[in-house]
Amino acid sequence: MVSGRNMSPFTETTASAVFASRLPLSTQDRLPLLVAAVAKSAHDLIRDFRPTRAEWAKAIEFLTEVGHAADERRQEWVLLADLIGASALVEEINSRRPKTATPNTIRGPFFRTDAPQRAIGSEISLDRIGDPLCVSLRVVDLDGQPIPSAIIITWQANSQGFYENQQPDLQPEHNLRGKFCTDGDGRINYRTIMPRGYLVPRDGPAGRLLAEAGCSLFRPAHIQFVVSAEGFETITTHIYDKDDPKLHLDALFGVKPELIRDFRPKSGDCKSKQLDFTFVMVRKKPETL
Amino acid sequence: MVSGRNMSPFTETTASAVFASRLPLSTQDRLPLLVAAVAKSAHDLIRDFRPTRAEWAKAIEFLTEVGHAADERRQEWVLLADLIGASALVEEINSRRPKTATPNTIRGPFFRTDAPQRAIGSEISLDRIGDPLCVSLRVVDLDGQPIPSAIIITWQANSQGFYENQQPDLQPEHNLRGKFCTDGDGRINYRTIMPRGYLVPRDGPAGRLLAEAGCSLFRPAHIQFVVSAEGFETITTHIYDKDDPKLHLDALFGVKPELIRDFRPKSGDCKSKQLDFTFVMVRKKPETL
Repeated sequence: MVSGRNMSPFTETTASAVFASRLPLSTQDRLPLLVAAVAKSAHDLIRDFRPTRAEWAKAIEFLTEVGHAADERRQEWVLLADLIGASALVEEINSRRPKTATPNTIRGPFFRTDAPQRAIGSEISLDRIGDPLCVSLRVVDLDGQPIPSAIIITWQANSQGFYENQQPDLQPEHNLRGKFCTDGDGRINYRTIMPRGYLVPRDGPAGRLLAEAGCSLFRPAHIQFVVSAEGFETITTHIYDKDDPKLHLDALFGVKPELIRDFRPKSGDCKSKQLDFTFVMVRKKPETL
Repeated sequence: MVSGRNMSPFTETTASAVFASRLPLSTQDRLPLLVAAVAKSAHDLIRDFRPTRAEWAKAIEFLTEVGHAADERRQEWVLLADLIGASALVEEINSRRPKTATPNTIRGPFFRTDAPQRAIGSEISLDRIGDPLCVSLRVVDLDGQPIPSAIIITWQANSQGFYENQQPDLQPEHNLRGKFCTDGDGRINYRTIMPRGYLVPRDGPAGRLLAEAGCSLFRPAHIQFVVSAEGFETITTHIYDKDDPKLHLDALFGVKPELIRDFRPKSGDCKSKQLDFTFVMVRKKPETL
């Protein structure tokens, strides 16, 4: 199973080949291939950047800190993966859809599974602080046929850029969250307030490192949705405001052209804005044995 | 500082370029370059291996476990770096020496700074369990001139493959450790027992993953040394037994041809073996301002 008895010694040049020669790469198992590829990536980075021992110790210290910052409430590794675009890429690879279907983006850390059920037409801003926004949504299939009884869960930041679970003492429980069921024509509507963009927190090693490297930690204003319906692939996505000046700097790489909308003034109501969006769902592939 | 306002959207193809376009790569600061390179490595691995969401979650879980396994006594990240050859490569890059000088290898986790001072000729096997070995060492410079008053710290596993600090209840404190000072001819000698090879522990996530991938966790029999002398680069190295059948499978990539020796029968003493080794030290470069 292990080859390489007469291999060359481990040097800067041979490092990755020597490591790979130890692994049973000819099998169908992907793990040895993955481990060899990860080792080669590490070797390539070391060869390119030639860290001093002190710099290497700093890198190990950073990885250790990321681990220590991860707990039940906070997953610092997920945040780091989000901030370097790895999460968005995994989502991209796993949710290939026809061009006319609504694309997925990442779910992010502020989702709650227990959003309260709301009647169509409800107000979900429980403290009514912010600029009013009316949201009208429709759920259809690829042929444009309405999907009744689809479940739409929504959550968003407030006018200061904070989710209610970031500010349990300042915002009412479940503020700016709701769970709706589409009517016979696949529609719902509700009232809320305009969300505000925010900075990904840099109180942990991931945010700190990326900020230090000069990376954007900005998330442009958006509303998040999970849309599910029996027989269809669940959509996890964001809708962005086209007027946000930092759309092109989204720290989590969630902005896609199909997800940018005009939050336009509502006709006949100069105080409120209006958002219209149609979610286009794809049927689930039949289960394979 | 941040470019890319009109950049293309984040897709599988553009991911690394979009990420890099956010960073101030034109500056002299290496951190943005490093972050961009790490992100590109992660993207390349994701593109090559196309993890499902479940596989990706498992990868995040592994990284989290490595973090949780690292504490004051055990540095699981160092062990993982050791096992994929990253530590050996960093050492390789940072200790370029002339061909005739003794090369460095990694220090490993069993070093103790407080090894007891021993007189030349001492026995360092405090329990005398194992096959006797006489060690004769000499320290010289590149011209072959002896270095008197050099400090040699040695430590090794016992005849079962365990260091004394792995078995505080079974071995005497400081068993098989010692600190010696070379005489006027740069020499020391001491008595010990033949070390035995061992397996890197797989009670943590790093060892488990590498074992699951089919990687060798074997460390061939060796004796470890740190040799220091005023004005010379400190040598941290191992001497290996040429008869160890698993020399080519060292899990930490510490074996180099220059460090393999014949632990030969001692002349006139059929019960003991003899190891001779000469450490060749390099003068420190003059301090630069």
